[in-house]
Amino acid sequence: MSFSAVNTIWVLVGAALVFFMQAGFAMVETGFTRAKNAGNIIMKNLMDFAIGTPLFWLMGFGLMFGGTGALIGGFDPLVLGDYTQVLPEGVPLPAFLIFQTVFCATAATIVSGAMAERTKFISYCIYSAAISLFIYPVSGHWIWGGGWLAQMGFHDFAGSTAVHMCGGVAAFVGAKILGPRIGKYGADGSSKAILGHSLTLGALGVFILWFCWFGFNGCSTVSMTGDETIYSAGNIFVTTNLAAATATVATMVITWIRYKKPDVSMTLNGSLAGLVAITAGCDLVNPTGAFFIGLAAAFVVVFGIEFVDKILKVDDPVGAVGVHGLCGAVGTILTGGFAVNGGLAYGGGFHMVSVQLLGVAAVIAWVAVTMTVVFSVLKHTIGLRASAEEETRGLDVTEHNLASSYADFMPMVFTGAESGEAEKPVSVEKAVTVEHFPEETPQAGDQTEKAARAAELTKVVMVFNQERFVPLKEELTRIGVSGMTITQVMGCGTQKGHTNYYRGVKIEEVALLPKIKLEVVVSKVPVRDVIDTAKRVLYTGHIGDGKIFVYDVRNVVKVRTGEEGYDALQGE
Amino acid sequence: MSFSAVNTIWVLVGAALVFFMQAGFAMVETGFTRAKNAGNIIMKNLMDFAIGTPLFWLMGFGLMFGGTGALIGGFDPLVLGDYTQVLPEGVPLPAFLIFQTVFCATAATIVSGAMAERTKFISYCIYSAAISLFIYPVSGHWIWGGGWLAQMGFHDFAGSTAVHMCGGVAAFVGAKILGPRIGKYGADGSSKAILGHSLTLGALGVFILWFCWFGFNGCSTVSMTGDETIYSAGNIFVTTNLAAATATVATMVITWIRYKKPDVSMTLNGSLAGLVAITAGCDLVNPTGAFFIGLAAAFVVVFGIEFVDKILKVDDPVGAVGVHGLCGAVGTILTGGFAVNGGLAYGGGFHMVSVQLLGVAAVIAWVAVTMTVVFSVLKHTIGLRASAEEETRGLDVTEHNLASSYADFMPMVFTGAESGEAEKPVSVEKAVTVEHFPEETPQAGDQTEKAARAAELTKVVMVFNQERFVPLKEELTRIGVSGMTITQVMGCGTQKGHTNYYRGVKIEEVALLPKIKLEVVVSKVPVRDVIDTAKRVLYTGHIGDGKIFVYDVRNVVKVRTGEEGYDALQGE
Amino acid sequence: MSFSAVNTIWVLVGAALVFFMQAGFAMVETGFTRAKNAGNIIMKNLMDFAIGTPLFWLMGFGLMFGGTGALIGGFDPLVLGDYTQVLPEGVPLPAFLIFQTVFCATAATIVSGAMAERTKFISYCIYSAAISLFIYPVSGHWIWGGGWLAQMGFHDFAGSTAVHMCGGVAAFVGAKILGPRIGKYGADGSSKAILGHSLTLGALGVFILWFCWFGFNGCSTVSMTGDETIYSAGNIFVTTNLAAATATVATMVITWIRYKKPDVSMTLNGSLAGLVAITAGCDLVNPTGAFFIGLAAAFVVVFGIEFVDKILKVDDPVGAVGVHGLCGAVGTILTGGFAVNGGLAYGGGFHMVSVQLLGVAAVIAWVAVTMTVVFSVLKHTIGLRASAEEETRGLDVTEHNLASSYADFMPMVFTGAESGEAEKPVSVEKAVTVEHFPEETPQAGDQTEKAARAAELTKVVMVFNQERFVPLKEELTRIGVSGMTITQVMGCGTQKGHTNYYRGVKIEEVALLPKIKLEVVVSKVPVRDVIDTAKRVLYTGHIGDGKIFVYDVRNVVKVRTGEEGYDALQGE
Repeated sequence: MSFSAVNTIWVLVGAALVFFMQAGFAMVETGFTRAKNAGNIIMKNLMDFAIGTPLFWLMGFGLMFGGTGALIGGFDPLVLGDYTQVLPEGVPLPAFLIFQTVFCATAATIVSGAMAERTKFISYCIYSAAISLFIYPVSGHWIWGGGWLAQMGFHDFAGSTAVHMCGGVAAFVGAKILGPRIGKYGADGSSKAILGHSLTLGALGVFILWFCWFGFNGCSTVSMTGDETIYSAGNIFVTTNLAAATATVATMVITWIRYKKPDVSMTLNGSLAGLVAITAGCDLVNPTGAFFIGLAAAFVVVFGIEFVDKILKVDDPVGAVGVHGLCGAVGTILTGGFAVNGGLAYGGGFHMVSVQLLGVAAVIAWVAVTMTVVFSVLKHTIGLRASAEEETRGLDVTEHNLASSYADFMPMVFTGAESGEAEKPVSVEKAVTVEHFPEETPQAGDQTEKAARAAELTKVVMVFNQERFVPLKEELTRIGVSGMTITQVMGCGTQKGHTNYYRGVKIEEVALLPKIKLEVVVSKVPVRDVIDTAKRVLYTGHIGDGKIFVYDVRNVVKVRTGEEGYDALQGE
Repeated sequence: MSFSAVNTIWVLVGAALVFFMQAGFAMVETGFTRAKNAGNIIMKNLMDFAIGTPLFWLMGFGLMFGGTGALIGGFDPLVLGDYTQVLPEGVPLPAFLIFQTVFCATAATIVSGAMAERTKFISYCIYSAAISLFIYPVSGHWIWGGGWLAQMGFHDFAGSTAVHMCGGVAAFVGAKILGPRIGKYGADGSSKAILGHSLTLGALGVFILWFCWFGFNGCSTVSMTGDETIYSAGNIFVTTNLAAATATVATMVITWIRYKKPDVSMTLNGSLAGLVAITAGCDLVNPTGAFFIGLAAAFVVVFGIEFVDKILKVDDPVGAVGVHGLCGAVGTILTGGFAVNGGLAYGGGFHMVSVQLLGVAAVIAWVAVTMTVVFSVLKHTIGLRASAEEETRGLDVTEHNLASSYADFMPMVFTGAESGEAEKPVSVEKAVTVEHFPEETPQAGDQTEKAARAAELTKVVMVFNQERFVPLKEELTRIGVSGMTITQVMGCGTQKGHTNYYRGVKIEEVALLPKIKLEVVVSKVPVRDVIDTAKRVLYTGHIGDGKIFVYDVRNVVKVRTGEEGYDALQGE
Repeated sequence: MSFSAVNTIWVLVGAALVFFMQAGFAMVETGFTRAKNAGNIIMKNLMDFAIGTPLFWLMGFGLMFGGTGALIGGFDPLVLGDYTQVLPEGVPLPAFLIFQTVFCATAATIVSGAMAERTKFISYCIYSAAISLFIYPVSGHWIWGGGWLAQMGFHDFAGSTAVHMCGGVAAFVGAKILGPRIGKYGADGSSKAILGHSLTLGALGVFILWFCWFGFNGCSTVSMTGDETIYSAGNIFVTTNLAAATATVATMVITWIRYKKPDVSMTLNGSLAGLVAITAGCDLVNPTGAFFIGLAAAFVVVFGIEFVDKILKVDDPVGAVGVHGLCGAVGTILTGGFAVNGGLAYGGGFHMVSVQLLGVAAVIAWVAVTMTVVFSVLKHTIGLRASAEEETRGLDVTEHNLASSYADFMPMVFTGAESGEAEKPVSVEKAVTVEHFPEETPQAGDQTEKAARAAELTKVVMVFNQERFVPLKEELTRIGVSGMTITQVMGCGTQKGHTNYYRGVKIEEVALLPKIKLEVVVSKVPVRDVIDTAKRVLYTGHIGDGKIFVYDVRNVVKVRTGEEGYDALQGE
């Protein structure tokens, strides 16, 4: 067999670009989630590729391409077999192997976003391995390896279904089984926004993905030989770009109308939605078809993400289910609608649409069933979800001993972690810990009482661990405290116990720990009530529970009303 | 017609790289501006490409390439015509279309940087559309579409004039009409630095741009067929890189001499300056010529940015006018100087230089006139500039309901917003609001007065909205307060009114709002003066105007002099 | 000579990708170091490429390829000679020149990471120039230019030794001569972790590097002509990727076992380790060989970095010595082990291994000797290391007048700067400055003493410059203060003296300066002791030394024990 330089260049450039999508996913996922989990997300994105690569070589590639069975290809560990029947013309086996490897890794990485901020790292590594090892390769074989869907004429050019929907369905199943992040849904079931820590990095990720998608779709011709193929490659670049652009603008307009302002992060999702949707049919549609597919994707992503979030109440921090799952499915089906040859819109009838529908349904079933099994096994063995404490403190510090991915800055760990399930542990502690309170030193109590009577206005300052902030704020509000000032501070103390490492070097017995300083000035609410409430909520019995300081205040002025003293502290 | 695989690969790889420049521009522009506008800048960079893509398909491409008229090409909505006459040899139409689309988007995106941090989002979308729809395509037709400049022999290989100067002139006109950011120029007209929020991301953007410029210039051969073309592609890589490197080093040296230290952000601009300047003649000059063009670009960018900023007093946050406008023009003209065949330096006489000058002048005139019309119409209809309040609070929150692009961090919104125009609204409010002050509660007043007499040292703590910081600081200084401590805190209260959305999900009645805590300790300055000043400056009549707290202080020590008590607070 | 389109495309795409590694290195190095040096690191990464490019054109390329002497090529300033003998088939000289230029710059940029956070900028520019001018070109000639190692059959396909180990050895010599960063090693010689400021950006850098490595290794075939070459290119993609993935997973597992948790930053290093190690033999090994080389790299990088850090006590902030130096050497040697033709593992005997060993040793010797000379000359002339004050304040502000690369955020400059050498300057100042203390105002002293007797609990608040934090914390701990609260605040004052510029524009007499507010509440420890200690440690005699405030405290409660008042402040 004689190899083609241009075909191989095309495949290899595509492989490099599709690899680089890992960087895009990593930036999108870390940017759309909180700083306390940034290192963990990065690590997960890195590991799915690093674990997936050897496993795809070990088994996945063989399952996908090692034969033309209806259901699976074959077993060919280490890719030693003969693949001349399936190789693109003029492309050597290793070039095809690396091209397929990076596509496989894309499917795996999609899942991490939907399950971000609460999944155990070890479990992540295992289910990610399962995807690369057999879940993706089997449905991939159906579509691209000569399996039953391919034989039926199912068309998924570059992987709306094979890659994106596969990842999106796994993401949905995982997020559903995991349950929502603490604070995501209120007691009344209302959904609450948990803002990402860097939309700038998220946007960088989207730009990287869009860039790489030219490789993902364009290079999926796996050939640059022959006029038709060369023309097609150009057309794919145009349709891919136009669908993405259209989806971006349309998403912006939809959010502008629905939410009164153009939403930045949803619009970024809109770009990805258009890219996912056009992937199945980018070779069969013309620019006009791409325009309509992009337009459809915008509606699907906005209403789809809302549907998942508000109706299904599945917590998907980055919108992966909407973007990859729903738009992958819709894009695959619309290929049957807009394909210039055979599409419904061009008089091709329903045949193509129905085959596309069947393929989508089959892959959904395959991935949903197998991933449910994988996640359930994990859940009932080593556990799928991080503990509430790990989740509240952040997975960086609990899973990786990483004080913060942003050591020189102080991310606010309390953002968005409103009430919801977070309240439960507190309530439990209430019951338990009250009994453990040491007797109060009487004279100290007296000292406070006396002072409280003398002064009309009192400032109470509480310095404590960040994760106690939300319950304390709520309890103080409950007893009538109406205004608070919160400052991020560093508390200085010695932390004993197990040693922390960073790059193999001990971290100096962390002299500085991030703390919250909460200040209230009270007059009507008794000082002792504030102190008792703080003690009850903050008490865990461990070193670092914090301190409470009491000061006299000479006067308080409320600017809006000009009220002073006692009056300045009443109501709002 | 038979297509060429290598030519098409070259064009498509170039298209992908030039697309990726969007990421570079987004990072440079967001990095060089303030965190409070990061999401808005990102969104603008995304939208110019997303809006420009369909519009260029709808009309721009036809205007530019649909005929060989002197002034415009033709009208060919959706690019359905026959372009065999203008297509590069062996390159199919869609490949050429996507290549031209990404170049067009580059011109549009340049403008956003110069007009950053104060332009209304809706107006941005409209003028950006105008650039892609007809302004860029028309002058592009003159140069690359067979128009009158092309017929005269004007040489602009990859777009120093067609792309960069076009964007730079539009940027200048826009920034001029918009006016400077609040705080950019002092009352005496002196220019003040407003630092960007992440030079690291800005630098990443520059690296991305440099990388992509190999596609921008190198792939503009739109062919890899024939020894001459292949050689030329290599030469273009060398000249492009050498000009950029030279400009970078030279800019660093110039800033080192002029400002005593090597300036990071100006040096980053220097890299871009070299790249812009070499773009017109990268195919005609040899490495030595590239060296001198890069050297010239360094001087142009440093003195040009200073000239625009200090003499013309046009506020260009990222230096787009200097980089793209001035270096685009100079690079185009210098092509007539250093072209190995026909350049002035090689004995080619003044003919080429004069044609280059004419082309530059013509494009300046075209873009300046049309953009002035576009901006003026916008200004007098829907408005071009955000309100002072929007600008002060940041466009992220006001235009996109985005509390912050960095939700887990607390960017300082007051940085750099010094005096200047910011004072005016305050002065107005002074007059108005004094009348609205509620009567002061007498007993509360007395309480303060009594306390003030008893204690020599008093701490006054004011907690208020960030945007009031600058005027309050200035008023306190005016009444004699010489030292202050400012802390970023979160104030806890309930915000009623309209609902905010993030990705379609309500943001929990934002329980935590960023506030400034300003502490002063006074002895000579009467406490009542401090309180009254704070009330006057902070009062707006809305919930959230803030509170003022007064405390006793036992002692103060000034470390440098050892003075204590009253003396420690006098002068500096 | 007739040029080949595919070969030239391959070389030029490779050149662009290898250029882009500069962005990867910049992100890795800035992310793994502290925010106060972010602009400086960026600038160094930019300058090594910008300085290296013209110098490699001026002299390096000629030295490397301008002849077939055993030791050096030739002198050919500006690359005007005839290189037809050395050019890859069908590749024009400029394409080969740019390809070699970007490889050279990679070697230079490696050094900056190991010497980060403490090297003078001017000295950096000079030694970086030396690397591009002759150090890299000479050993490069030996290996790739037809020199003595090439003649012996030494095999280093894409530069494990020629590029990475060259950079790594220079990095080691530099870091050794420079000495560790302040605070890196305790008085007892124990190594302390100094955390990087953005692992997220560091990870982005690793993804960029991995992406670009497909160009670095894959395009080093410098040809896509002939079945063997085309197949080889595909194989190189596979081996490169597999080694990197294996090294990543293995590093994660090793750190998990050794440090109890999977270490994020070490795992990121692990990816790079695998890439460096496979670079020499990526064309000669099969996937199985790549797997073992990646596995070896994981062990080398983890134990190598620990060895350098803990045993050799050479402070290498980003692990460049371990990654590029050690893994470069090991990868080169293992090529002799795993080469399918001639490798030890395939029965090829020891010949190849011994040649590889010899080559590694020779390059180590060459680079170590020349760089020692370069660094020593620099050290004894203009100086190699920044002053202790510059290092403590950060190189951004001291070398570049850049208040911060993150102007809208407040990076914590005190992180990690624990004791160690930092103590020395303080001790010196103690002796000196005590004499300069102005006489204490007696009445103010009395005022404090009286108050201290009256109140049991006293709060002392110190507001001062960030760099004084560590010594003050230590001195306060020494006199018995057991708890502190630290807040980052902005102090407001006027800074006189020299003018600062940002992009040529004066920075408004920085009205806001970052300060530390340190609060302690004492009862047993005399207030006067706290004040005197603070005065002694904070005093420098300059404006901005800070102030100390004293307040009454009504009560204190320790949450864990419920103790109040005096008792709450004792012990932990």
